[in-house]
Amino acid sequence: MSAPSVLADLPVPSPAEAAIHQRYREPVDALGGHWNDTIATLLDHRSVRAFLPTPLPQGTIEVLVAAAQSAPSSSNIQAWSVVAVEDSSRKARLSALAGHQRQIEEAPLLLVWVADLARHTAIASARGLALEGADYTEAFLLATVDAALAAQNAVVAAESLGLGTVYIGALRNHPEAVAAELGLPDRAYAVFGLVIGHPDPERPSSIKPRLPQQAVLHRERYGLDGQAAAISRHDRHSAAFRSEQSLSPQSWSDLVVDRLRSVEALKGRHVLRHTLARLGFQLR
Amino acid sequence: MSAPSVLADLPVPSPAEAAIHQRYREPVDALGGHWNDTIATLLDHRSVRAFLPTPLPQGTIEVLVAAAQSAPSSSNIQAWSVVAVEDSSRKARLSALAGHQRQIEEAPLLLVWVADLARHTAIASARGLALEGADYTEAFLLATVDAALAAQNAVVAAESLGLGTVYIGALRNHPEAVAAELGLPDRAYAVFGLVIGHPDPERPSSIKPRLPQQAVLHRERYGLDGQAAAISRHDRHSAAFRSEQSLSPQSWSDLVVDRLRSVEALKGRHVLRHTLARLGFQLR
Repeated sequence: MSAPSVLADLPVPSPAEAAIHQRYREPVDALGGHWNDTIATLLDHRSVRAFLPTPLPQGTIEVLVAAAQSAPSSSNIQAWSVVAVEDSSRKARLSALAGHQRQIEEAPLLLVWVADLARHTAIASARGLALEGADYTEAFLLATVDAALAAQNAVVAAESLGLGTVYIGALRNHPEAVAAELGLPDRAYAVFGLVIGHPDPERPSSIKPRLPQQAVLHRERYGLDGQAAAISRHDRHSAAFRSEQSLSPQSWSDLVVDRLRSVEALKGRHVLRHTLARLGFQLR
Repeated sequence: MSAPSVLADLPVPSPAEAAIHQRYREPVDALGGHWNDTIATLLDHRSVRAFLPTPLPQGTIEVLVAAAQSAPSSSNIQAWSVVAVEDSSRKARLSALAGHQRQIEEAPLLLVWVADLARHTAIASARGLALEGADYTEAFLLATVDAALAAQNAVVAAESLGLGTVYIGALRNHPEAVAAELGLPDRAYAVFGLVIGHPDPERPSSIKPRLPQQAVLHRERYGLDGQAAAISRHDRHSAAFRSEQSLSPQSWSDLVVDRLRSVEALKGRHVLRHTLARLGFQLR
């Protein structure tokens, strides 16, 4: 009889505990026993930026769009569209507009999520009406949120099928050029792209740690003072993550300041309001 | 031996076909064989507005927040928070601010999703910096989208646990009063609420039909002309749905025009831009 392994004495974490540890790098109080395949899929999310050239199975786009359309929509207005880009040269041009993000060219599919009031404007026009409400910030917000909710359902569906995804916010660096490339009409703009494909198992990506729940979850009323301790723990967890990934050392707080410190840090997106107005969103 | 049932001759739809039929009321071409529990959960979404008073199991809020925090966040900025409201009198006051939506009082939990740059502003302040970038439309958009992606993951997690949900966009009718009720700091605003509870089986809700994919899904470039036929079919499907639900007759096109036709149709939200500025979002 061989000697008992030392490892056998360590408690084996449940799948829920293991997922929570990857996400937070610390325990979450009172999580309870809620666990199923869907929650496992949600908690296992990581952005994937390295893809195989393998084409997507037939019908993938349609099932992702069905999932997206099943997301809630404000008053059922359905103020979004999606452009599925599979053409290599179009993907290459969009990649260039997004600061040359290689994953757009590598993966077989880029879904561009469009906040879309053009369809609604056309319906009103046919009745001789101007759709005045569309010129207000509320309408811009509604269409943007509708597109985001839909896109996130597509992400969850894709990941449940074993596919990898990453959002491309950098399409907002050049919104007019993107609109021209995709033939977007007035009152439609690309909120972000979403790259979808089979993750390359030889270049796997990791789960990024998030702020402890103490910073993000508030009970009854918002509290700012209580966040400092949680942010400091997150700074340590993020720095550890970056070091494991051989990335340059940077705490989360450093990242935040770096990203929003100045007009220059917005990488050209400080003109977004004016660009949106030219694309038909007045944000009154 | 009894006579064979006529029904036995009809082909039995697969779960995927049945779900697609409920969502679109017409077939979707080329859907393929993609199906699993997560996709079933996504496609089965319906807004629930009738709840049992049953409390949520312990740990529900924490698992929903873990799912929400697992959603992608632009540059990992994590520009959102959530306020969990369970206190009956606070729910009643928020319900009043949202035009008296009974479901907020009926359900045990209201999650208010906050686009939040206050945390980031505090980090910068501690370093003597002003976080200039936060005054731009891009930062407002980024925080709003971050909050929406997170909230939608919570919706999916809740539904996978058999809970019902409905978004409450009407919190934007009185954003300053909502901010005061929740103690939101400068540079934080409530994007929407989310009611969560056990659906009342005696008052079940139904899946609302959506636009055919031909209106929403575009290949390579956006097309407006091709949408008219799909919109007309959707008008018929929506009218049929409303009639089944004993709702007043209204086509989807009528709804769209009604909702965005005029400044008055925005129900007070035409001042949102100015209110947001007072809450710390300048939208430059």
